[in-house]
Amino acid sequence: MHNPHIANLRPAPPLEVDHWFNTPQALRWDSLRGKVVALHAFQMLCPGCVAHGLPQASRMHEVFAKDPLAVVGLHTVFEHHDVMQPRAALAAFIHEYRLRFPIGIDRPDPHGGPVPLTMQALGLRGTPSLIVLDKRGRIRLHQFGRSDDLQVGALLGELLAEPDEDESADCDDQGCRLPESISAGARS
Amino acid sequence: MHNPHIANLRPAPPLEVDHWFNTPQALRWDSLRGKVVALHAFQMLCPGCVAHGLPQASRMHEVFAKDPLAVVGLHTVFEHHDVMQPRAALAAFIHEYRLRFPIGIDRPDPHGGPVPLTMQALGLRGTPSLIVLDKRGRIRLHQFGRSDDLQVGALLGELLAEPDEDESADCDDQGCRLPESISAGARS
Amino acid sequence: MHNPHIANLRPAPPLEVDHWFNTPQALRWDSLRGKVVALHAFQMLCPGCVAHGLPQASRMHEVFAKDPLAVVGLHTVFEHHDVMQPRAALAAFIHEYRLRFPIGIDRPDPHGGPVPLTMQALGLRGTPSLIVLDKRGRIRLHQFGRSDDLQVGALLGELLAEPDEDESADCDDQGCRLPESISAGARS
Amino acid sequence: MHNPHIANLRPAPPLEVDHWFNTPQALRWDSLRGKVVALHAFQMLCPGCVAHGLPQASRMHEVFAKDPLAVVGLHTVFEHHDVMQPRAALAAFIHEYRLRFPIGIDRPDPHGGPVPLTMQALGLRGTPSLIVLDKRGRIRLHQFGRSDDLQVGALLGELLAEPDEDESADCDDQGCRLPESISAGARS
Repeated sequence: MHNPHIANLRPAPPLEVDHWFNTPQALRWDSLRGKVVALHAFQMLCPGCVAHGLPQASRMHEVFAKDPLAVVGLHTVFEHHDVMQPRAALAAFIHEYRLRFPIGIDRPDPHGGPVPLTMQALGLRGTPSLIVLDKRGRIRLHQFGRSDDLQVGALLGELLAEPDEDESADCDDQGCRLPESISAGARS
Repeated sequence: MHNPHIANLRPAPPLEVDHWFNTPQALRWDSLRGKVVALHAFQMLCPGCVAHGLPQASRMHEVFAKDPLAVVGLHTVFEHHDVMQPRAALAAFIHEYRLRFPIGIDRPDPHGGPVPLTMQALGLRGTPSLIVLDKRGRIRLHQFGRSDDLQVGALLGELLAEPDEDESADCDDQGCRLPESISAGARS
Repeated sequence: MHNPHIANLRPAPPLEVDHWFNTPQALRWDSLRGKVVALHAFQMLCPGCVAHGLPQASRMHEVFAKDPLAVVGLHTVFEHHDVMQPRAALAAFIHEYRLRFPIGIDRPDPHGGPVPLTMQALGLRGTPSLIVLDKRGRIRLHQFGRSDDLQVGALLGELLAEPDEDESADCDDQGCRLPESISAGARS
Repeated sequence: MHNPHIANLRPAPPLEVDHWFNTPQALRWDSLRGKVVALHAFQMLCPGCVAHGLPQASRMHEVFAKDPLAVVGLHTVFEHHDVMQPRAALAAFIHEYRLRFPIGIDRPDPHGGPVPLTMQALGLRGTPSLIVLDKRGRIRLHQFGRSDDLQVGALLGELLAEPDEDESADCDDQGCRLPESISAGARS
């Protein structure tokens, strides 16, 4: 199904975003806890993003509309900065391509490097890239290039079926811990 | 994701098959227990099967090759019996379309009706139809027409992630039962 | 545009056909004189024919409905004779795939060879093949495999724009002859 | 084939272009005389142009590379001027989408209207639009929206097969005129 060696269980680094479209307030991983997240990194002038990545993201947004899945776009400009940086250009692009899910602009490197901050922190190789987080915010897929619908669908189905973190004890071969919500409450 | 009202939890009725291709021995639901099953019902002369259903089945067979998923084809002839019934025609079709997964010929109605026996028992509305069984052999999807890759993928991912029936106590709001394998052993 | 070296100007050999579908009477090249002819050779169990060749033929039949273009299918069985030879199977295929243009069954080799007679005479390499005749019945395209719509369209546009043979003197580097209709009349 | 009522025989109005890509010198209809011209009007942020119009133009450019056909793009910005007007954005777009044929930027209306000058003069309804000129520079197709490959191919094949204007007397129901090249020479 999905390739386990391309997933690692580190938590996703913080979203560094300058401006959001299609959402009244900025997204943070914290506020998405309990949801599976499909993060599509793209650029307006990337043909593979326009032909495959963004249509796939839009279909996900429709197909899983009633499920606890958040589809999030991230405009990660690492080339042609002069023409893709202007916010108005992305606004027109989102309008014309009828993209309905929240989309953020990855924050440019303050030191002047070409790769923006979230893209750096995620270690993306290019666009399109698809990052999938489980309900606890851990990276479960980290894929560059075209993603297969059956494979991505299977991963999403598996992650959506996982229990919410508060619903179950957190067990592994070390033992079982109280859910964070409970233990946090106990500490306070 | 998948539409719960099109699934019901009755067990799949027995496969009534006259001849199998691509498998050394006849398939039975019993022998597939512990696997998720994707059953594609098709006819050679059904354009939607040739254009969508069978290519999807072949991709499933590749994408989930390492997972406990069995892709099974069922040739359910309910029209043009004279030309689709001959076994040699289906053999040539399977060869030319490079279908690699097990495919059975649904047994004709002994009373001379047009609809073959497994198709009757499953209550299929036509071809292509996709039936998905969980690891316990219960029907979880029963869909006529074209199936969306993201949706089907999500269902398969969910079902593949379910525990095997022998691995867990069988709990619901009535209580928890011993797994069938254990209780069956206890009875013997 | 079209590749001149794959065309030669020999006249098409006679159609050797056992049975016709979608036409009240047998087709002969003679009766198609004055029309451009697109002859699609196919087999029911040829995936490339079903996916590309036959849909292209059907679109031609629609797009050029008002032009002097005859789209003709030829079922040239050179393998799986036992299952593709029966006329009833082809009838069901034509019905299910909604093929509307005339289709003939190429006559089997009376000496028992696998390749039927028209296919032999045309020197086809396999299926799908597309043969295009100009208004005088001369072969202008002889192509095996998938044909590009822009290229085929361009050839048809060129041939449709050629004058009918009766409208012009027949000139080449040997000189100019009277049109056949006139000279035939003069002989009688 | 092609619809005669969408063609009219007026000559194409002059190209009003501010900047050209993929050509060392500005294109003028005069310099394209003797060639069939396929003019694709598009905008970078037009999904139908990116998905259909521009790929069709690129395929034409390849398929008819040895024929007297000029494929020309025209960036006709009539909306989102702020983000599509900058020349650098179009340069990056042309680079990323690997467009190889000459492309001009339609000149903005000096009176501040939204529709640029060539687009106004041609009376285009939107993008994508395909305008086809014959070897004499007369408009033979004027089509808004998606163009069918077989139909466009047929028109191009017909026009490519027309004689060059210098090769033939220019005859119509008014009589026959000397070719312009000859009569121009006679006048000088």
